[in-house]
Amino acid sequence: MSDSRPIGVFDSGIGGLTVVREIMASLPNESIVYFGDTARVPYGTKSASMVRTFALQDTRFLLKQNVKIVVVACHTASSVALDQLNGIFSLPVIGVIEPGVEAALKATTLNRIGVIGTRGTVLSGTYEKKLAERREGVEVVTQACPLFVPLVEEGWLEGEVTRRVAAIYLQPLLDKKIDTLIMGCTHYPLLKPVIQDFFRGEVHLIDSAEETAKTIRVRLAQERLENRSTLPSHRFFVSDIPHHFLKIGEQCLGRKLESITQVTLDVIESAEG
Amino acid sequence: MSDSRPIGVFDSGIGGLTVVREIMASLPNESIVYFGDTARVPYGTKSASMVRTFALQDTRFLLKQNVKIVVVACHTASSVALDQLNGIFSLPVIGVIEPGVEAALKATTLNRIGVIGTRGTVLSGTYEKKLAERREGVEVVTQACPLFVPLVEEGWLEGEVTRRVAAIYLQPLLDKKIDTLIMGCTHYPLLKPVIQDFFRGEVHLIDSAEETAKTIRVRLAQERLENRSTLPSHRFFVSDIPHHFLKIGEQCLGRKLESITQVTLDVIESAEG
Repeated sequence: MSDSRPIGVFDSGIGGLTVVREIMASLPNESIVYFGDTARVPYGTKSASMVRTFALQDTRFLLKQNVKIVVVACHTASSVALDQLNGIFSLPVIGVIEPGVEAALKATTLNRIGVIGTRGTVLSGTYEKKLAERREGVEVVTQACPLFVPLVEEGWLEGEVTRRVAAIYLQPLLDKKIDTLIMGCTHYPLLKPVIQDFFRGEVHLIDSAEETAKTIRVRLAQERLENRSTLPSHRFFVSDIPHHFLKIGEQCLGRKLESITQVTLDVIESAEG
Repeated sequence: MSDSRPIGVFDSGIGGLTVVREIMASLPNESIVYFGDTARVPYGTKSASMVRTFALQDTRFLLKQNVKIVVVACHTASSVALDQLNGIFSLPVIGVIEPGVEAALKATTLNRIGVIGTRGTVLSGTYEKKLAERREGVEVVTQACPLFVPLVEEGWLEGEVTRRVAAIYLQPLLDKKIDTLIMGCTHYPLLKPVIQDFFRGEVHLIDSAEETAKTIRVRLAQERLENRSTLPSHRFFVSDIPHHFLKIGEQCLGRKLESITQVTLDVIESAEG
């Protein structure tokens, strides 16, 4: 059994390439089609209903590329749109929330878990809900960190400003004595060293991208969708090619970006399932 | 002669309300229709061709509201799309660049002018071009400040982080001994105290919103488009109503926001002139 159709991955922009990087590492035989909605990025500051509309359009675009599974690599979209997508489409749709939740519950010993993300992700309450569903009595402390994405996109991955911003956002989590922290946004793994330093290495950091790649591998095996026979190909679609795109994209992906195609928004918005 | 049709104003989001505030103060008889493209905000990080497409759609939407003049309250859109809009439409289209340019040339004594803005505005080179066209030999120093908008939207209008970020961005302008600084983004007037402190009050700060309102007043008089007879009405349209919208909007406008209507993106994208 072998299924050579690609894995579809979408994100609000290019941060989702951190997930693609882990899929490439974990599933080297698989082809990937990526869509980054760079014309409408970010999703994390927008309303839940707007993000649901965007997520539906992004998924339909990937379906047109004949994908076998859809990965919602954006935490905001996973928070507010995953259930809806799973209700509408028959193929597997995997988000980045549940893999991080599972890993955090395995890692915590004190049952006090912190979650950092965009305002959209935090306001949705999805992490608290999913954690409470899996384990009664778990304490969850959430914190929106709206400046983390702009800092990463400015390339300020360390330095005094970034350390101070991190301290302001993370101090309440330290005060609550969390022992595990879910990095609930695709950009945040690039700030791992600063976050790790703030907690003096005394907190388990959960990288959702790594965990999501593991979940995809298991799911492909369960559904007998693995690819065994062909050489993988990787295609990248974006709705805009903005300034600094390549620099940040290659930082997230950890390698050169080949074969980028720009699609116009009317193609995205009119994509039918 | 009196023309009761509204003034149309658009921006990438809600920062353009700083321009509306000045229009209201300067032209209290005029009705205003505002469109903020909050579903696709920001424009400043996106490509010039994408911003041109958005600006065209935004203008067409305002024309459908029967406006008598269009104000492009977004510096990025003014930088890359104003000439195109003036070529297509017969009604007056006014941007925020030229009013700031005129004011800066009046204010400078050393002929050394600084310009701060988004990456899109700075990369367009529009300010340098316009300043050089008006005065030979003027020195222009530009600096993109991508973190200023996120800082304003986070509500961090002062404090240690904002002062440090400002120092990093503004130091090269101080080194070049500018005597006048154009704040080339609608959000930046909210950071005026921090910017003023950094320069110890020794730089003329040009607020484009104020200057644009003056330009509109002159233009309405020239074209005999002033409204004399009726009570003004103000209508606000946005493409999304995101988190923190009202708080930041009212900060920019300096008063309560009444009558906000959300329009869907397909209405914006299909607006015909």
